[in-house]
Amino acid sequence: MLDINQNFLKLPGNYLFSTIAQKVAEFSAAHPQQTLLRLGIGDVTQPLVPAVIDALHAAVTEMGDAATFHGYPPDQGYEFLRSAMAEHDFASRGCDISADEVFISDGAKSDSGNLQEIFGPTARIAVCDPVYPVYVDSNAMAGRAGTFNENTGTWTDLIYLPCRAATGFAPELPTVTPDVIYLCFPNNPTGATVTRDELQRWVDYANRLGAVIVYDAAYEAFITEADVPHSIFECDGARTCAIELRSFSKTAGFTGLRLGATIIPRDLTRGGVTLHSLWARRQGTKFNGAPYIVQRAGEAVYSEAGRQQTAAQVAYYLDNATMIREGMSGLGYEVFGGINAPYVWVTAPAGMTSWAFFNHLLENAGVVSTPGSGFGPHGEGYLRLTAFGARESTEEAMTRIANV
Amino acid sequence: MLDINQNFLKLPGNYLFSTIAQKVAEFSAAHPQQTLLRLGIGDVTQPLVPAVIDALHAAVTEMGDAATFHGYPPDQGYEFLRSAMAEHDFASRGCDISADEVFISDGAKSDSGNLQEIFGPTARIAVCDPVYPVYVDSNAMAGRAGTFNENTGTWTDLIYLPCRAATGFAPELPTVTPDVIYLCFPNNPTGATVTRDELQRWVDYANRLGAVIVYDAAYEAFITEADVPHSIFECDGARTCAIELRSFSKTAGFTGLRLGATIIPRDLTRGGVTLHSLWARRQGTKFNGAPYIVQRAGEAVYSEAGRQQTAAQVAYYLDNATMIREGMSGLGYEVFGGINAPYVWVTAPAGMTSWAFFNHLLENAGVVSTPGSGFGPHGEGYLRLTAFGARESTEEAMTRIANV
Repeated sequence: MLDINQNFLKLPGNYLFSTIAQKVAEFSAAHPQQTLLRLGIGDVTQPLVPAVIDALHAAVTEMGDAATFHGYPPDQGYEFLRSAMAEHDFASRGCDISADEVFISDGAKSDSGNLQEIFGPTARIAVCDPVYPVYVDSNAMAGRAGTFNENTGTWTDLIYLPCRAATGFAPELPTVTPDVIYLCFPNNPTGATVTRDELQRWVDYANRLGAVIVYDAAYEAFITEADVPHSIFECDGARTCAIELRSFSKTAGFTGLRLGATIIPRDLTRGGVTLHSLWARRQGTKFNGAPYIVQRAGEAVYSEAGRQQTAAQVAYYLDNATMIREGMSGLGYEVFGGINAPYVWVTAPAGMTSWAFFNHLLENAGVVSTPGSGFGPHGEGYLRLTAFGARESTEEAMTRIANV
Repeated sequence: MLDINQNFLKLPGNYLFSTIAQKVAEFSAAHPQQTLLRLGIGDVTQPLVPAVIDALHAAVTEMGDAATFHGYPPDQGYEFLRSAMAEHDFASRGCDISADEVFISDGAKSDSGNLQEIFGPTARIAVCDPVYPVYVDSNAMAGRAGTFNENTGTWTDLIYLPCRAATGFAPELPTVTPDVIYLCFPNNPTGATVTRDELQRWVDYANRLGAVIVYDAAYEAFITEADVPHSIFECDGARTCAIELRSFSKTAGFTGLRLGATIIPRDLTRGGVTLHSLWARRQGTKFNGAPYIVQRAGEAVYSEAGRQQTAAQVAYYLDNATMIREGMSGLGYEVFGGINAPYVWVTAPAGMTSWAFFNHLLENAGVVSTPGSGFGPHGEGYLRLTAFGARESTEEAMTRIANV
């Protein structure tokens, strides 16, 4: 009789966004006349830009002709896209990353979840609290997280890095020695950032201990301030301790197209083995490349027109973020984030939990948000609002909240 | 200091197709004037059919308009595609599979590799010999295969099911009890099939033992004979023991588009847990859906025009298979497969190993094939030829081999 993977049974029953969806469905059923404004899940709403649409149509046409048809993509991605990323995301910022250190994938969520396969079974994992749940759950499924404690909302074997308002939601160096450290800046869910100097401290720390930093740069396109790094490879020594995750989802609205990349420098070795070779083997065995047409769409993001058009789209969302930030602040709420990130992190009114604040906005304003406690214990007492809505919906949400 | 996953270091150094690519590159460098005819890797060559191209263009246009834009796809796939598969692949053949038992993915290779994550760490794995390498390597990476023995070419902890010419390359029931059995029919690499009655024996066996069959039906579109099952769910009792992998790669030429599906019936439980819920959790955590435009392309495969056009393409490749089969047979070679499959399995001339036969065809005819020994020890003495070439290349390959 087959035994299943028992680690799956240790996962808490309800996934955050499923719980939200259920609460929203119940509210809608009870109040069918109330239109809902969704500032919850971080999905984009604006269409793909013209440069991307043109590239997609052209690539589709190629696929219909035997002379220009493309079959299996290279496991690691087409050279045209890896080179464009190496040039525009790294060389242009003075980062030493070559095209063959870029692994194209079907999105940063897949890579965030799969990357832990190349680590040993007893690797000690450090995560921020609050945190994007994929880092935690994927390690829990592999047995590295221990047991989930329903009372504390934490896993016994993970190292938590609390992110508190007093330190701008930047984590502090852990007291227990980690083997792997997941960092995400600009941060999901808090919208916080770190400066280049602060990130350099983490790189130096990881190099000193032999730890590996998994750096999620999914939101780097939203950075507006000069001293906030767009890549961990802006730091000295990152080539011997860091892996970076990149995403086209928020940069160019590719949530429905699925495209991302993982960067592994060849200098990153442990036990005499390059992590680059391990990931190449993992992807070569269990992945068959991102679609040709989607990789051509990704290339178009780096064209002159593509860069202008996607920058305008990011600016549109950042204007929403400013509107949310200033709107909530003007109503007397304490707000964080929203300057270098599409997320605004709002402190719940005194005495209210995250879920109570969530219910308050849902029931009184028809606004869907995300309770901070869903991202970890230190998210309790906060709420995440996202700037990915249409302008009109965001405006109306702010008007409704003001009228509560 | 981070420890890496040591199981990766146990994998044999050279992946089959990398070794072939290297040998071909060396030959080309030495003989720059010789054109090569590739009957090796199983990639398709014919363009996407018009119904699919039309659907892709229409979906791309939708993505360029805010009113019809699609963001994150559902983890499990869009209902329109899951329903089309449930109707055309299952209901039409009398199989009881509902749309919510279909999980859409970015291809059967990903699913083949990732599926083992829901099995326990000590599950005993049975594989055919010869075999598609992904089933073996993905379990080896998870530590279920033990150690690789370079002399025998086998893993210590896997259960091998030898497939021999005497039994039409159908495996026999194992003597050691397995927990998971990987079966692929029509088979890659031998092109062999099993009848419905033969497959029923495997279903009964698995149900008796509580084993789970992972049934890879990637090549079912090539079936021409009536008693060969298109799905394991044509067998009684398969809903309590089988998972099926489906692919659009060979059915509709989607190798470059990336689309597949995994079918897990809700009746399949182990230890009181549905495997459906485990896979849903795995995919919900580590996958974000296949692109909307690609799922629309998949839907078009099931339209009236799509079915006619893809059937014509499959027939084109089957004509190649017949040409290879009859051509090689006419030259005195012993051949198998190629009737219900795009693969022809050829016995090497007496005294020749698989690699010697491979070199013989490469050096004397400029034809690239795949040595059977690359798929496992019982593949030794055979060669795989694929029918996915263009008609003219396949004809020329046969002419050149005849002239050797």
